Amino acid sequence: MKKYLLVFLISFLTFACSQTPQNNQSSLTKAEPFLESWNEGVSKKAIEDFIKNTTDPNSPDFIPEKDRIAVFDNDGTLWAEQPMYFQLYYAIDFIKKNASDHPEWSKIESIQAILQDDLKAALDGGTQAILELVMVSHSDMTAEEFAQSVRSWLQESRHPQTGKPYNQMIYQPMVELLELLRANDYKTFIVSGGGIDFLRVWAEEAYGIPPYQVVGTSLKAKYEEQNGKMEIIKIPELNFIDDKEGKPVGIHQHIGMKPIIAGGNSDGDYQMIEYTTQGSGPSLGIYIHHTDSIREYAYDRESHVGRLDKGLDDAARLGWLVVDMAKDWKTIYPE
Amino acid sequence: MKKYLLVFLISFLTFACSQTPQNNQSSLTKAEPFLESWNEGVSKKAIEDFIKNTTDPNSPDFIPEKDRIAVFDNDGTLWAEQPMYFQLYYAIDFIKKNASDHPEWSKIESIQAILQDDLKAALDGGTQAILELVMVSHSDMTAEEFAQSVRSWLQESRHPQTGKPYNQMIYQPMVELLELLRANDYKTFIVSGGGIDFLRVWAEEAYGIPPYQVVGTSLKAKYEEQNGKMEIIKIPELNFIDDKEGKPVGIHQHIGMKPIIAGGNSDGDYQMIEYTTQGSGPSLGIYIHHTDSIREYAYDRESHVGRLDKGLDDAARLGWLVVDMAKDWKTIYPE
Repeated sequence: MKKYLLVFLISFLTFACSQTPQNNQSSLTKAEPFLESWNEGVSKKAIEDFIKNTTDPNSPDFIPEKDRIAVFDNDGTLWAEQPMYFQLYYAIDFIKKNASDHPEWSKIESIQAILQDDLKAALDGGTQAILELVMVSHSDMTAEEFAQSVRSWLQESRHPQTGKPYNQMIYQPMVELLELLRANDYKTFIVSGGGIDFLRVWAEEAYGIPPYQVVGTSLKAKYEEQNGKMEIIKIPELNFIDDKEGKPVGIHQHIGMKPIIAGGNSDGDYQMIEYTTQGSGPSLGIYIHHTDSIREYAYDRESHVGRLDKGLDDAARLGWLVVDMAKDWKTIYPE
Repeated sequence: MKKYLLVFLISFLTFACSQTPQNNQSSLTKAEPFLESWNEGVSKKAIEDFIKNTTDPNSPDFIPEKDRIAVFDNDGTLWAEQPMYFQLYYAIDFIKKNASDHPEWSKIESIQAILQDDLKAALDGGTQAILELVMVSHSDMTAEEFAQSVRSWLQESRHPQTGKPYNQMIYQPMVELLELLRANDYKTFIVSGGGIDFLRVWAEEAYGIPPYQVVGTSLKAKYEEQNGKMEIIKIPELNFIDDKEGKPVGIHQHIGMKPIIAGGNSDGDYQMIEYTTQGSGPSLGIYIHHTDSIREYAYDRESHVGRLDKGLDDAARLGWLVVDMAKDWKTIYPE
C-alpha cells in the first residue's frame, strides 16, 4: 500500500519544465487501418513487416489468430503524460470540487495544500501525500459514481499547456497502429500503471479498446447494499500495482497469455517488453521515444515522468524498436 | 487467506453420494449455433426470445453489441462438479504423483492422509487442510509448469464414476448456448470460484472461451528470474476469492462492465446473478438446476457441493430462469 504511485511518480519537481506543443502538422479526416500518420522509414517498415509476417499463413513467423495479443502502456505511449500524469490532474480537480462536502479532509495536509493551489507543498509529503490525494478522489464511492465523475471531468477540463481536452491528447499514430493490429486479428490491450477504472471510462471511445481489455493499477472493491441497491463500492485500499515487474504479473493474471507485441515508453514498461520478447518465437518490443520538443515533449533519461533510461540502453541489444516521435510521426494528436 | 476453498467447499462428506450417470441419449456431430440439445419448452424459448430481443435493433430491449456481456459460472454450470470439484481431484493426483520429490510434505498431516488414500482424514482439518493441498499443488512453480501439469493431468485422468476425461464432462447444451451467444455478438466470460489458471488451460478448447475471458479465484504471482529466464511464478498466497459477493467484484475488476446475462447453479452464484439482473434494462438470470439423477446428478438444497437453496427460493420472485436439466436438456455431455 505504501508503494503506491510509483504509478504517478513524483513528478511535480519537473512541473512546468516542458515546452508547449505546437499545432499538428497534418490532419486525418478518418482513421484508416493503415499507418497514415507514420512517416516512411525503419519504424513503420518494421511494424508493417512484423504484422505481415505474423499474419501470413505461409510465413515461418505466422501466429495463429487466437495467440495474437498486443499490449500497450497508456501514459506516454497512447496519450501524453506531461507535465504530469493526467490522472493526477483528475485527483486534484476532484478534491477542489468536492472539498466543501468533506470537512474531514481539512485535517489532511496534502489536501490543504491542494486547496491553496500549492502543488509543491502538497507533494512534499512524497508517496504518502500522493496516496492520500488518490484515495480520497478514487474511493468511498460506487463504481458508477466514479465513472460518472471521470466522464464529467473529461468533458469540462482542459490541459494547462495545450488547452485541449485530455482525451484529445491521444497519439494519432498509435490509434492507427491499434486499428491496424485489430484489422489483422490482434487483440489489443492496455497494460497501464494508471488506474484501471479511470482508463475504462474513456479507452473504448479513444482507442477502441473495451473495458475488459484494460489492465491497470486498482483499488479493492466490495459488493454492498447502498440506498436499497446492490453496488460495487471502491474502497481506499490498494489491490494491485501494475507497474514495472507488476506489468508481466498483471498480464498473467488478467490476460493469461504471453503477448506477441508490447509497446511502452518508460522503464516502467521494461519488464513487460522483456516478458513479451524473451525466448523463441516472433515478438515485437516497441519503445516510443519522446524526442519532439516542438510538437509534444522531449524527455527520457532525466525525466521524473516517464523516465526512459535502462530501456534506451538495452533496446538495440534486445532487438526492440525505438520509435522516434519527431522523425517517425507525421502528426501527434488527432485533429 | 484463511477462507480459501469456499471455492472447493468441503465436499468429501458427501463423497460417493451420487448416482452414476448413464450414457448420453443423443449425439451431435458438430456444434451448431442453435440450441439443438435443448428440448422445446419454457427454458429454451425464454433464452431464444431474450437473445432475439436484445439483438434486434427494432426491439425496445435492443442492446448495442459492445454491451453484450454474458457470464457463466463453471463448476456445475458448464461442467459437472460431483462427487467433488474436479480441481480437487487435480490437487490430490498432483500430490500423489510428486510426493517423492517433496520429503518436506511428509510433515503436513493432510498430505500424509492423501498419500494413505484417506480422504476423510485429509479433510478433517477443514478449510486449513484443503488450503494446504491446494497451495502445494498450485504454487511454487512457474505459470507454464502449472499449465503443463494441468494439461497432462487432463489427458491422463478419468472421472471415478463416469470413466470420462474430466473435460468431456462439460454440458453440451451450455456449449451450444455459448456458441449461440457468440453468434449473436455476445462476449462470453467464465466467472468461476475455481482457479483462474486451472481453467485457462482448457476453457478455450472446451467452451471457445479464451484465457482473457476467464475470471476466477487466483493466487498471487511474481515475475522473477529462474534458470536464466524471466518467469511468472505462482506463489502460495491467495490473491482473490471469486465466489459469492466476490463474483460481482471479480466482474467489476476484470470485465469492468455489468453483464446482460448471468448463469450459475449454486448460491455462490446468487450475487453475480443479482448484480446482473437488478435495476432497469434487459437482463437474464439463469440457474441450472441439477434434477437429473439418471444422466447426471440430482442435488440442490442439501448438497455440500453446489448447494442451491436461497437461489431456488428467490428465482421466481426475481424473474430468474430455472433450467431443469432432466426436462430441458436432451443430452448432458458431448458425444
